[in-house]
Amino acid sequence: MVDSRTIVSVEHAQELAERALLREGTSKETARCVAKALVLADCDGQYSHGLSRILSYIGQLRGKKVNGYSKPIPQEISASSVKIDANGGFAYPALDMAVDWLTACCIQHGIGVASISQSHHGGVAGHPVERLARAGNVSLMFANTPKAIPAAGGTRSLLGTNPLAFSCPREQLNPLVIDLSMSMVSRGKISNAAQQQQKIPDTWGVDKTGNPTTDPNEVLKGSLNSFGGEKAAVLAMLIEILAGAFTDSNMGFEASSFFDADGPPPQVGQLLIGMRSTLFNERFTDGVERLVAEIEKDEGTRIPGAKRFDSRSRAISQGIEYPSSLIESLSS
Amino acid sequence: MVDSRTIVSVEHAQELAERALLREGTSKETARCVAKALVLADCDGQYSHGLSRILSYIGQLRGKKVNGYSKPIPQEISASSVKIDANGGFAYPALDMAVDWLTACCIQHGIGVASISQSHHGGVAGHPVERLARAGNVSLMFANTPKAIPAAGGTRSLLGTNPLAFSCPREQLNPLVIDLSMSMVSRGKISNAAQQQQKIPDTWGVDKTGNPTTDPNEVLKGSLNSFGGEKAAVLAMLIEILAGAFTDSNMGFEASSFFDADGPPPQVGQLLIGMRSTLFNERFTDGVERLVAEIEKDEGTRIPGAKRFDSRSRAISQGIEYPSSLIESLSS
Repeated sequence: MVDSRTIVSVEHAQELAERALLREGTSKETARCVAKALVLADCDGQYSHGLSRILSYIGQLRGKKVNGYSKPIPQEISASSVKIDANGGFAYPALDMAVDWLTACCIQHGIGVASISQSHHGGVAGHPVERLARAGNVSLMFANTPKAIPAAGGTRSLLGTNPLAFSCPREQLNPLVIDLSMSMVSRGKISNAAQQQQKIPDTWGVDKTGNPTTDPNEVLKGSLNSFGGEKAAVLAMLIEILAGAFTDSNMGFEASSFFDADGPPPQVGQLLIGMRSTLFNERFTDGVERLVAEIEKDEGTRIPGAKRFDSRSRAISQGIEYPSSLIESLSS
Repeated sequence: MVDSRTIVSVEHAQELAERALLREGTSKETARCVAKALVLADCDGQYSHGLSRILSYIGQLRGKKVNGYSKPIPQEISASSVKIDANGGFAYPALDMAVDWLTACCIQHGIGVASISQSHHGGVAGHPVERLARAGNVSLMFANTPKAIPAAGGTRSLLGTNPLAFSCPREQLNPLVIDLSMSMVSRGKISNAAQQQQKIPDTWGVDKTGNPTTDPNEVLKGSLNSFGGEKAAVLAMLIEILAGAFTDSNMGFEASSFFDADGPPPQVGQLLIGMRSTLFNERFTDGVERLVAEIEKDEGTRIPGAKRFDSRSRAISQGIEYPSSLIESLSS
C-alpha cells in the first residue's frame, strides 16, 4: 500500500507541528522552536530529521523521556566558554541559546565554545552552524548519539553515528555547509526505510550476527557501517569524547534511544565551536571562493550545502510534500 | 638490492640530523627543533615523517624553498587567539610556539586558537596535540598539504591529504592520540614505497588517467584515494578551509610540493584549537576511561595512539633501525 501524499506550506506545517506539541505538554517557546527545526529539516530535504520524527517525539513526551517545559540553563565558565544544561528538554532550545551566545562571543573575543549537556536528539547538525556562518563565523559542531557503529576493529554497536557539521560564510552567497554522520547513512534514514517497509543497500549495515542485510529492521537491531572503515570509526570516537565526555554527558553506549519512549532520557551532548571568519585573514571568503571555483572546474563535483538550499527555496515557494496520514494525525 | 640496516640510538640520530641541517644553513634552534621532530616520528614508527624526509628537506634548504634561519612571528589577535607567521621557515618552530602559547592560554581562558600561515610540512600532526594533552588539554589540529586527492564527485587531484589530529588526557596514562589523513594512506607512505621500489595495493590511488595502479610513482603523478569516498573528500575540503583560507595561507592546489626543491615555498597552513579538558566536566577522564573500557571489551579493537607509544618506548630503549646509506650520508 502506497501512502497518499499531501502538499503543505512551510507555515502550515510549522503550525500543525506546534499545535501537536503544545497539546502533548510543552511550553509555547519549546513547541515553536521544535516545530521550526523539524520543518526546516524537511525544507532542506533532510526528511529523516523532519516531521517524520514528531510521533516519536510525542511518544517521548508522554513517556517523560523528554521534558517539554524544561528551559536550558546557561553557565558562563569564562569569557569564551559557556556550559548549557539542556535540563532534560529538547536539544533545539539549547542549540538556539548556544548559537546566540557564540554569535555575541565571537564578535568580542574571536573564538568561543558552547557545550550542551543532558541533551536530546540534536536534529540537523548543519542548522546551528549555518546560523553561525550567517553571522560571520566559521564553526564546528560535534554531537554524540546512541550507539550504532562498532569501534575501529570491533564488531558490536558501540559508538554513535556522531554527526560533525561545519559551516563558513561565502561571498554574497548562502554559507558553505558540511554535515555528515560517521555512519554510511544516518540511523534516521534507516528508520525511515523501516517505517516505509523499504529494502536498503547491503553496504549500510549488518544484522546482530555481523552479516550484511538489506532489511532495515535487522540493521537497527545490529550495527550500522561507518562510512570509511577504521578511520571513520576513529573519528566517531573523537566526536564521542568531545560531545560526550568533554560536555559532561552520556557516552553513546550509555544513552537510550532517540526513537522510542523506553528508558531514561538519553542525556547525550553537543559541542559547538565558533570563530570569527576574519580572525586571521580579512580576505577569508577570497580563499573559500578560490577553492570553490577550482572544485567547480571539475565535472561531477558539488559544493556542500548547495543541495539543501535549492531544496529549501523550492519548499518555501511550493510547499513540502508529506504522507497524508502524518498530516491527518497532526491535524486531529 | 636490499639496503643494509643500522641501529642508532635516539640521541645519536638527533645529533646526526642536527649536524646535517646546521651544515646546510639553519640556525641552531631550528636544527635542533627539526631534528627532534623527525626522530620522534621514527621513534613512533611514523617513518614516512621521519629522517626519510631529511634529504628532501636539505634539497629545499639548498633551493631556498625553506629558510633555515627564519623565526616564526607571533601576533596576538585577542586574548584567546594568536596568528603565527611561519615566515617561510620550517613548520616545527611555529608549531612549538603554538603549543606553548595555547598551553598558557587554556590555563587562563579555557580555550584558544593558534593559526600558522606561510608554513611548510607539518610533520606528525599527532605530536603537537599530544603535547597539549600532556598539559591537560583537549585539542584539535588541522593541516593542509599540496593537492593529492579529488574533491567529492571529482576526478583530478585537488585537495590535500589534509591530516586531522586530536588528543586528550587519560587517567595516569599516555594521552589518547588520533592522527589521520583524509587519504587512504599518507603521501609520505607512497613516496617511501617509491623510494624503496615497492608495489602498493591498487586501492591506495589512481594514475593520471584515473585508473587504479600498484605503481607508487604513477599514483604520485595521479591522485590518492580518500579513505572513505565522498564523505572523506568533503572532510578534506573542511580542513582545506580551516588550515588554508582561515589561517591566511595557500590552498592545497596552490601549494608547491613538500618533497622536491622546485617552485616557490608551499606556504600552507596549520590550525590548532586547545581547550582545557576539565572546562565543562571536572571528571573528564572518567568519561574517556568508561569509553576506552567499553571499547577494550571488544576483541580486535585498539586504542588510538597506543601503537605509537609502544614503538616509542622500544626506540628509546633499543634504538631505531635506519637504512645504513641514510646514516652514512648524514655522517659524512
